[in-house]
Amino acid sequence: MEQNKAIIGIDLGGTNTCIGLVGADGTIIETLRFKTFDYPLIEDFIEKVSEQVVFLAEKFNLSKDNIRIGIGAPNGNYYNGSIELAPNLPFKGIVPLKDLLEENLKTKSYKANVVVTNDANASAMGEKIYGNAKNIRDFLMITLGTGVGSGVFVDNKLVYGESGFAGEAGHSIIVPDGRACGCGRYGCLETYCSATGIVRSIKELLQTQTKDSLLRQINIDDITAKDISDAADANDELALECFDMTAKYLALGLANAAVLTSPEKIFISGGLANAGEKLFKPLREYFEQYLYPVFRNRISIEPSGLPDNKVAILGAASLVAE
Amino acid sequence: MEQNKAIIGIDLGGTNTCIGLVGADGTIIETLRFKTFDYPLIEDFIEKVSEQVVFLAEKFNLSKDNIRIGIGAPNGNYYNGSIELAPNLPFKGIVPLKDLLEENLKTKSYKANVVVTNDANASAMGEKIYGNAKNIRDFLMITLGTGVGSGVFVDNKLVYGESGFAGEAGHSIIVPDGRACGCGRYGCLETYCSATGIVRSIKELLQTQTKDSLLRQINIDDITAKDISDAADANDELALECFDMTAKYLALGLANAAVLTSPEKIFISGGLANAGEKLFKPLREYFEQYLYPVFRNRISIEPSGLPDNKVAILGAASLVAE
Repeated sequence: MEQNKAIIGIDLGGTNTCIGLVGADGTIIETLRFKTFDYPLIEDFIEKVSEQVVFLAEKFNLSKDNIRIGIGAPNGNYYNGSIELAPNLPFKGIVPLKDLLEENLKTKSYKANVVVTNDANASAMGEKIYGNAKNIRDFLMITLGTGVGSGVFVDNKLVYGESGFAGEAGHSIIVPDGRACGCGRYGCLETYCSATGIVRSIKELLQTQTKDSLLRQINIDDITAKDISDAADANDELALECFDMTAKYLALGLANAAVLTSPEKIFISGGLANAGEKLFKPLREYFEQYLYPVFRNRISIEPSGLPDNKVAILGAASLVAE
Repeated sequence: MEQNKAIIGIDLGGTNTCIGLVGADGTIIETLRFKTFDYPLIEDFIEKVSEQVVFLAEKFNLSKDNIRIGIGAPNGNYYNGSIELAPNLPFKGIVPLKDLLEENLKTKSYKANVVVTNDANASAMGEKIYGNAKNIRDFLMITLGTGVGSGVFVDNKLVYGESGFAGEAGHSIIVPDGRACGCGRYGCLETYCSATGIVRSIKELLQTQTKDSLLRQINIDDITAKDISDAADANDELALECFDMTAKYLALGLANAAVLTSPEKIFISGGLANAGEKLFKPLREYFEQYLYPVFRNRISIEPSGLPDNKVAILGAASLVAE
C-alpha cells in the first residue's frame, strides 16, 4: 500500500493544542485537539502529542521513517526548536520541544523531523501560502487569542531576527506603567487586546461606570470575550464602548509596528477577529489617526483569509512541506 | 586627464546640509556644508546644492556625463526619489528631490543620477558598509539629531517596506497623548529623545523642580542640548536627571522596536550619541528592564563606529557606489 505524503501541523496555543493532518494540496484532512492546560507537565504534554501523532500516522498510513511535523507555539524558536519563557503556557523556562517530541516518537519506532516556530509566525506563513497574503511582499499578521501574537513579512520573507523570536508586537509596551502582563512587565499590547485583555477592559468599565448593561446579569468573574461580543451585537452600550477601547489600543500598537516595516496590509486572525466590523471599523479609524502621516491611506487592515482554527495548523505544516 | 571616479553623498538634515565627495575607497575627500533653513524655498535650496555639486565636480574633474549623487533626507523615498511630509524641514508637502536636482544640473550641462533615501536609512547603510555593522545581519540604526531617525536591517538587507518609508521608529508613539510632535501627532519618541526633545525635558525639569542647577544661569529659551550635556559633565544633578529621563524614554522606544525585528545590535549616532556613558549607561539598564524577557542579554546598544558627520554622507554615497 502506498505511503501517504501528508504532513502534520500543530497549533500549540495558550488554550487549545490542535494537531492537524495536512494533505499535499493544503487541505486539512483531520484535526485532533485537547486543552493545553490539561497537561501542565511537559513530559505528559509530549506524551499526549506523540500519541495523537501516532494515531494519525497509523490511521493514514504515514511512513514510519519520515514523519514531518511543523509546530507553531508561543515563543517557539525556529533556530533551535525550543519554547522559551512563554508567559501563556504551563511550561516554564526553556523547553526543547523539537528534541523531546522526536525522542518520544523514536521510542514508539517513529523517525520524525520536527520544526518549531512562533505561533503567530506560523499563522503568517499560513496566510502567505494559503490565505490572503499570497501576493503581498510586506505584511503583518496579528493573532488575537489568549495572547496577542504577530508575524512580520518583509520583502517576501518571514522575519526571524538574530534570536529567532522576531515579531512579538503583542509585547510592545503601549501604556507605560500600564496593566501587568504575564511576561512580568507592564502595559504590553497583549494586556489590552487579547481575549483576556478585553475581559479586563469590561471589568474596568463595569466597575467604573454606572451605566446599565446586559453584562451585569453575568457574574463579573465569569464574563468571557464571547459574552462581550454577544452583548455588543445586541447594541449594549458598555460592550460597544469596550470594543471601541480595544480597537483604540490595538490601533496604537499596530501604528507603532507599521512605522518600522511599512507593511502593505495587516491581517488579523484569532477569536476576536470574528467580532467583525464592531472591531474593524473603529480599528481602522483610530489606526489612521495614530499613523505617521506618510503611511496614511496606504495600509489596509483586513481579517485573515483563513478560519482561525486552520491558519496556524496550515502555517505550521508549511514549515515542513517539501 | 583621467576622470575622477569619486561620488557625491549628501546628508540633508533638519539643521545642516552636508555635501561630501567620497573616494572609491570610502574616504571623504572634501565636505561642503550650509544651514538647511537658510534656503526655505525648495528652488533656492536645489540651486544651492547644484552649485556646490558643480563646484566639487569642477575642482575634482568628475565626468560631466555621469555625476552620481546619493542623498539621505528625512522622509526621503528610495522608490521615487521624493521627500514627503517631512516635519523637520522647511519644504512642505511632496518634493520631487531627485527630479528637481537632476533637471537643475542638466541646465548646467551636467548629467546626474540622483538616488534618495531616508537620512537614517543612509546612516544604516554607512554603518553596514563602512562602520561597526559590517558583519551584522540584523540591526537597528538610531540617529539622534534634530529628530530621531532609524534604519532597520533584516537578514542583511535594509528594510524599505511597501512605501519606501520603513524605519520610522522616531515616530512610534511611546506616550499616548504625550508631547505634541512636528508630525501632527502626540507622544512620538522623537519629542523626547531628539536634541530638541531633551531641551523640552530640561525646561520641564527646571520649571517643575526647585533644585539648583548650572542651567538656571542660562536664559531658559536659549538652552541647547550641548548646554545640558556640559552641565551633566559638571555633575549637575538636574542635567543628569534629564539624561536619565531621556535614556528611559529612548529605552522604551528601542525595546518596542526590538520585539518586532529582533536585532543583534542597536547602533546610536547623531549629536546626542556623543554624550557617551551618561546616556548609554542608563539607556542599557532601562532597555533591559523594558525588553520582553526572551530578548534580554542578547541585544547590545553601541555608539556608531563612524563620526556622525560622516556616517550619513558615506551611507548616502553608498547608494550610488558601483
